[in-house]
Amino acid sequence: MKLVVKDMDIATGGILIAILNEVDAEKFDLHHEDRIRVKKGSRETVAVVDIAESEKAVPIGKVGLFEESLDALRAVDKDIVDIKMEKKPESVKFIKKKLEGKELTSPEILTIVEDIVKNKLTAIETTYFISASYTKGLSEKETIALTKAMIETGDVLKLERYPIFDKHCIGGVAGNRTTMVVVPILAAAGLTIPKTSSRSITSPAGTADTMEVLADVSLPLSKIKKIVEKTNGCIVWGGAVNLAPADDKIIKVENPLSIDSEGNLLASILAKKGSVSSTHVLIDIPIGRGAKIRSKKEALHLKREFEKIGKGLGMKIRTVITDGSQPIGNGIGPVLEAKDVLLVLMNSPSAPQDLRKKCLRLAEEMLVMAGKSRKIASEMLDSGKAYEKMVEIIKAQGEKCILPALLKPGKCKYDFTAAKAGRISRIDNISISKIARIAGAPIDKGAGIYLYKHKDDRVAKGEKIFTIYAENQQKLKFAVEILKEIDGIDVK
Amino acid sequence: MKLVVKDMDIATGGILIAILNEVDAEKFDLHHEDRIRVKKGSRETVAVVDIAESEKAVPIGKVGLFEESLDALRAVDKDIVDIKMEKKPESVKFIKKKLEGKELTSPEILTIVEDIVKNKLTAIETTYFISASYTKGLSEKETIALTKAMIETGDVLKLERYPIFDKHCIGGVAGNRTTMVVVPILAAAGLTIPKTSSRSITSPAGTADTMEVLADVSLPLSKIKKIVEKTNGCIVWGGAVNLAPADDKIIKVENPLSIDSEGNLLASILAKKGSVSSTHVLIDIPIGRGAKIRSKKEALHLKREFEKIGKGLGMKIRTVITDGSQPIGNGIGPVLEAKDVLLVLMNSPSAPQDLRKKCLRLAEEMLVMAGKSRKIASEMLDSGKAYEKMVEIIKAQGEKCILPALLKPGKCKYDFTAAKAGRISRIDNISISKIARIAGAPIDKGAGIYLYKHKDDRVAKGEKIFTIYAENQQKLKFAVEILKEIDGIDVK
Repeated sequence: MKLVVKDMDIATGGILIAILNEVDAEKFDLHHEDRIRVKKGSRETVAVVDIAESEKAVPIGKVGLFEESLDALRAVDKDIVDIKMEKKPESVKFIKKKLEGKELTSPEILTIVEDIVKNKLTAIETTYFISASYTKGLSEKETIALTKAMIETGDVLKLERYPIFDKHCIGGVAGNRTTMVVVPILAAAGLTIPKTSSRSITSPAGTADTMEVLADVSLPLSKIKKIVEKTNGCIVWGGAVNLAPADDKIIKVENPLSIDSEGNLLASILAKKGSVSSTHVLIDIPIGRGAKIRSKKEALHLKREFEKIGKGLGMKIRTVITDGSQPIGNGIGPVLEAKDVLLVLMNSPSAPQDLRKKCLRLAEEMLVMAGKSRKIASEMLDSGKAYEKMVEIIKAQGEKCILPALLKPGKCKYDFTAAKAGRISRIDNISISKIARIAGAPIDKGAGIYLYKHKDDRVAKGEKIFTIYAENQQKLKFAVEILKEIDGIDVK
Repeated sequence: MKLVVKDMDIATGGILIAILNEVDAEKFDLHHEDRIRVKKGSRETVAVVDIAESEKAVPIGKVGLFEESLDALRAVDKDIVDIKMEKKPESVKFIKKKLEGKELTSPEILTIVEDIVKNKLTAIETTYFISASYTKGLSEKETIALTKAMIETGDVLKLERYPIFDKHCIGGVAGNRTTMVVVPILAAAGLTIPKTSSRSITSPAGTADTMEVLADVSLPLSKIKKIVEKTNGCIVWGGAVNLAPADDKIIKVENPLSIDSEGNLLASILAKKGSVSSTHVLIDIPIGRGAKIRSKKEALHLKREFEKIGKGLGMKIRTVITDGSQPIGNGIGPVLEAKDVLLVLMNSPSAPQDLRKKCLRLAEEMLVMAGKSRKIASEMLDSGKAYEKMVEIIKAQGEKCILPALLKPGKCKYDFTAAKAGRISRIDNISISKIARIAGAPIDKGAGIYLYKHKDDRVAKGEKIFTIYAENQQKLKFAVEILKEIDGIDVK
């Protein structure tokens, strides 16, 4: 059938869409979510049918095309195109197979992931895949295949080195900016650690948000390769490079229901590691109230799963279970955390000791994986070599700041003080994160919370426990309002 | 935040959508599929966020609104609106509960169905519900609650009568236009049977498509009520009235993967019956190759499920298991089937006897449910009272045709003849339906297939087995091409 193009003047950024008037759709027996092949001259593309009920949106005899389809066809408004029914991609059959509870083969999973990456599946089809993976679970074989497929369908950082180290924290702990200390310690010790990190989705700061206070984090893969070859390490934003791009598309359909199946969690984390060719990976699993993992039992189960899947991928995985019952470090929010990190690296007396201790522990575990002495970690830190290495990495990535004194938190602040004297029995990660986010973190880099006290510390009546920082009075006001509902701190 | 309206000049027909530029979305920490409340003066509405990556689609500082949101706000291009973050509807929590394998309560199911009907859920969220219902299954209690919720969230035909009869066929059998004979038999016998039927989705004709050849089928509920009060029955298109509207929206997300969970199937069928206040329902389950249900075991399981759910709904359900191994009647396609129906009702010698027999059987079963004699069925048919009743119903609905001689199939035709002499051992429903559809049915009312032979009939070499009818040569050519791949008929 021949139809006249209507330029809809929008882009989807995802799957191609063609809108038909309902009269034409009925005439040609086309339904919502059917595929059609649209042809103009020698150019053609496949789009998913959407149906317009009004002539205003798409008149009879016309087909509404979005930016991406127009580009693919080099078509403009009022051009004539030819439309034919097209079969659904084969991956839809495999998704149905998974929904029916059958195990998928590696080629079937690769086909699904390829179609997700190439925007060939609709949101509904991808949702069925994620939902089936969640309700039916992924087998060990399927999880390994999914991880490999996610790596293969993206770019890969190739380095002529072995071993290549990486680390990952399961998360949920406020502060806890260990990567920015561990990477320079290991790089200074001669280990290769090309670290890509994420930005925050629900926390007050991701490593990429915090590192961005000190240096550029959005770098092309070629530049990352050069930096790692020169300095042994980097701390960049994974989102700026096309590593395991399926992950973001999967997260997009997981987010509306905040679901995260174990198989997808494992695949998502390990695909990012595989994409930078990591061979040795340390997984930090913090446990405790407010952390993502609540119990030791859960942590041990996850540890075993990581090790199994890692083995299937030919990756050495070591897992540490750490205390995630309260924030780590004093600062929460990009600027405040960046300051903590620099103070630790500079061996400043005002550096948070809990953060220093945890970073040393993680670095030691990785040195053991490399067959080296644990002692090297504190040697690198105490000698200032780790700090020098951090400065080198910051300069290589594009320096923004290397002096803690120049890092200024938001100008509006509010002190939270103890209502009575006593011992702090609880500092809740979820509450602290929420207050810091409402104060503006991570978008407002200077927003967040600075903790003067940790769990088990004693406070006098009226003594400051923490300060909230914000970049404007309104956000500070919102944060203080929330604070009154959920202070997240118990004094006994 | 204040934004300037951009009129996107499209309508979704579903959930309200607001498109933000990615810069604004990031600034306000809004993600794809988040909800926002959009306010203009005293008017406000909730929309789902979509994110534009280009300034061309939606510039920074603007919000792209679709037709439905503009109407709700009485807003026009360049108006200023205020935008606030809005929580997800509560039903999303219940969908997640079902995904985790927990049983839902009746109020929880009602909330989900209400939100589906009111377009408050996105396609992704609805898909999670359908997917979880499919992989986790619905309990008896959940299926009853779903059926009730589907009835309650739509219009209901209320009649001051008892009992009210209804019938449903599980489908997959070509031809098989029993409703159009059973309804006039029962209505003539004094039973009340307000029948709503569907149009075809994948078959060459639904009852609504076929009845439309003889009378109007798109009638408002008030008119249907008057017709039934006057004639005891009707045969109308359910899609024209707002009965159990959740069903269509659920089907929209089931179609892309052609999934149909048992719980959804039961709820979908029985909700339509409940929406016309039916108290006595006959379910016809045809079994055999090509029918929806393949084995007696499956049919008996479904029978038990129907009876259980019916009991929970206070509905009397009787099930008959019938032969679905080949088409029933001679005509396949709206005009050809309508002709069969009229010939049966007129006791014509050329009426297909298999259709007559099956219709009598179904009518008898329903008379038994009414506590009446089985014999009344053939009395109504043989005496011409059923035909008179059909004429009365056709006139009441808006007559188009009542004489079989005036029903003309498509002018282009092709005869399929026996390649050798023998006995017909198989006539495949799926193949016959596919050929009839490709010939143009049900959109082209005269398109379809006329069968001269049925299973076990003997044919001479070169004797006609069936004729394909189409309304134009091109469609006939396509149908003949398909016929050569899949004739669907075995002669032994």
